[in-house]
Amino acid sequence: MNPLEIITRKRDRQKLSREQIFFLVDNFTAGKIPEYQFSAFLMAAILNGLDTDETFHLTEAMLYSGKSVVFKKTDHPVYDKHSTGGVGDKISLTLSPLLVSLGINIAMLSGRGLGHTGGTLDKLESIPGLNPFWSEAQIKSRLGKTGLAISGQTDKIAPADKKIYALRDLTATVESIPLITASILSKKLALKTDGIIFDIKVGSGAFMKTRRQATQLARSLLGVCQKFKRPAGCLLTDMSQPLGHNIGNYLEIMETVEFLKTGGPDDIRQVTFRLAYEIMRFQKPGIDRKKTYQQFSEAIESGRALSKFREFVKISGGKTGPLDNPKRYFKPQVSAIIRSEKKGFLHQFNTELIGKAALELGAGRRHIDDKTDPMAGIVIYKKLGQKIGKGEIIFRLYTSNKSVIGPVRKMLGDSVKIGKEKIASPKKIITLITR
Amino acid sequence: MNPLEIITRKRDRQKLSREQIFFLVDNFTAGKIPEYQFSAFLMAAILNGLDTDETFHLTEAMLYSGKSVVFKKTDHPVYDKHSTGGVGDKISLTLSPLLVSLGINIAMLSGRGLGHTGGTLDKLESIPGLNPFWSEAQIKSRLGKTGLAISGQTDKIAPADKKIYALRDLTATVESIPLITASILSKKLALKTDGIIFDIKVGSGAFMKTRRQATQLARSLLGVCQKFKRPAGCLLTDMSQPLGHNIGNYLEIMETVEFLKTGGPDDIRQVTFRLAYEIMRFQKPGIDRKKTYQQFSEAIESGRALSKFREFVKISGGKTGPLDNPKRYFKPQVSAIIRSEKKGFLHQFNTELIGKAALELGAGRRHIDDKTDPMAGIVIYKKLGQKIGKGEIIFRLYTSNKSVIGPVRKMLGDSVKIGKEKIASPKKIITLITR
Repeated sequence: MNPLEIITRKRDRQKLSREQIFFLVDNFTAGKIPEYQFSAFLMAAILNGLDTDETFHLTEAMLYSGKSVVFKKTDHPVYDKHSTGGVGDKISLTLSPLLVSLGINIAMLSGRGLGHTGGTLDKLESIPGLNPFWSEAQIKSRLGKTGLAISGQTDKIAPADKKIYALRDLTATVESIPLITASILSKKLALKTDGIIFDIKVGSGAFMKTRRQATQLARSLLGVCQKFKRPAGCLLTDMSQPLGHNIGNYLEIMETVEFLKTGGPDDIRQVTFRLAYEIMRFQKPGIDRKKTYQQFSEAIESGRALSKFREFVKISGGKTGPLDNPKRYFKPQVSAIIRSEKKGFLHQFNTELIGKAALELGAGRRHIDDKTDPMAGIVIYKKLGQKIGKGEIIFRLYTSNKSVIGPVRKMLGDSVKIGKEKIASPKKIITLITR
Repeated sequence: MNPLEIITRKRDRQKLSREQIFFLVDNFTAGKIPEYQFSAFLMAAILNGLDTDETFHLTEAMLYSGKSVVFKKTDHPVYDKHSTGGVGDKISLTLSPLLVSLGINIAMLSGRGLGHTGGTLDKLESIPGLNPFWSEAQIKSRLGKTGLAISGQTDKIAPADKKIYALRDLTATVESIPLITASILSKKLALKTDGIIFDIKVGSGAFMKTRRQATQLARSLLGVCQKFKRPAGCLLTDMSQPLGHNIGNYLEIMETVEFLKTGGPDDIRQVTFRLAYEIMRFQKPGIDRKKTYQQFSEAIESGRALSKFREFVKISGGKTGPLDNPKRYFKPQVSAIIRSEKKGFLHQFNTELIGKAALELGAGRRHIDDKTDPMAGIVIYKKLGQKIGKGEIIFRLYTSNKSVIGPVRKMLGDSVKIGKEKIASPKKIITLITR
């Protein structure tokens, strides 16, 4: 077997075998196949496609390039939730303590924010003292202790993915359903959970701009999960506007705490509850939605959800002050407001542009090594379909970098379309795909 | 402009501009774009294609990466001939002295053999003392003096091609009409000749296995030549069997001398005369073919063609003994014969396999740095369509490496199909394409 032969097969639209895919991935990861050959393969794979079998084998090869984390069997099932990434998406943080407070354990490996989307790790790190990088032993023991493990990925998980992703990023081979599938699942499947719920974001702030693309990704993820015999479901949710009101690391912690205390804002609750419900259905497919949502509300009202989050913050070394009095810890250097220039109804957001504005303010990172500003971000006061008066505040922004306020004003101004007609606000839950 | 943007455009089937193509080629050649990005571009270009404009700009960018050779204007036009490569193809050597003896100057940059096809430079070097690597100044002055310049390519000609070709070879991006076109023409156009005739080989011993592929290449070459305003024509000739009887470096010099003395063998004469005639038609489109062929025969019979070759060999530092008494200089170490195992008619050659057998014997090279054995090679006694008796000799092989005789016997045995029915021998000239 040699790399040239395998690249040639894919170039000529022939199907690759498990052995051929493992040969490529193993040798590339070991540094025995040069980057220029692997990037030619990636481009051929993007343009000629990989079928479900090939995507499965690619996922296997990437997954088995590293270690898996196996949990002790207990009475509590362990589930994982993955979002394809959006703006203002703090659902990992709202969902996990809620479910754990109801006896469903949650384990997830999270990532840093990159580009216009935020990352759970950056949000957690905005809590003073909190270290979200756990060892494998800590992941296991803390899950056993508290029922909740959210940690940064260790180097031992799918090292092939890390190396392949870095190359894809530089060779215009990111946008490919099979490659995205293998990248997501090689990491997700390394945690031996009892099932995974995928939150696939659709719309102007998501990687999948259309429902058609999102459906393709859902079917690809489910097809490969099935081959691994891992229960999975995909919820398509709306990303035509940011989730909640707050975008930015500490700002999203504040909104998480708000949710755990009050159950709001509305859109956060809808998405959180539905994802939590779908996870509960992995175990009991027949449960009633209304009754389950009632349980969720009770877990919030009783303070049990928040107290699970408190446990998690504590065990991670974080101060719990921000959970008691979030505003006290919010210390942005500069702020500015953006008002509407006309009256009407909020017709459209360019959500990706809003994400990029938050990045400019310091909330995100362009390169994986950039530092983020925990206090930077944006608060959005209006949602799609809402009435707005001339001069009303739409955005408030926070940053420690005064010089970006001018450009960000322009970006945020450009990100909104206000029209005369009343329009309906978009549904948060688009559809559930389970096979 | 950045490379990622340009790769993305080609991946998404968008047309690239002249500026974008120059940016890629210039920066790759200068080492500023890494190989892994350029190979992703190459794969995208292969799979999504390059149109005539893009191929033209790619050719320009590669051509202008190096120098051009401009000749002094004289009464003698200067033409170039290029073959896409075949087995036993010594037409550059038979054609050039013939035309030069008739007042048509010939200048060509030739290459080494690689894989199953031979190279003009290796053949020339089998003449003791001959150095086919001329400086630019020598190319010009010797062309002025003798009317004939055949030289190895200098490093100053299209350095981008050299670098790109090395990468294509390792990334399964060789087989692409636009990339082949740009590679050939970036070198050919660097010699400022008055026109180029392309001998496009078709069949089992050629890179283009079908007439359809060969026609595509012809149209691509002509399309780009037209944009450069360089007169050009493409002759499609048969490579379903080796050209002539001799394959191997010195063996082909012997056959060249045979042609220059006697006008034979028949297939060599047919291809040489037709290509020579098409070159003469660049100047005088209306000339009569029969009369021109008559002139060719006279140039041979009078000894003028051979004496031009003698001049060329002398000026290149070579001994002329091999022209006077070729056999005296043929000193192979070992030889063997291969006989037919049955009687019938010669139905088919696997010409590529014959080329590979010659390579095994030492006549060719697998890697560009390998050394060749000047005396190694194969003589073929039978041509397609000929009657053959059981036990008749089909091949005689020569080598200095005894250990390969066994495997080569097998290869050559496998390369021939003998059938019962009489069949016609294939036409040497398939068609002429001029636009």
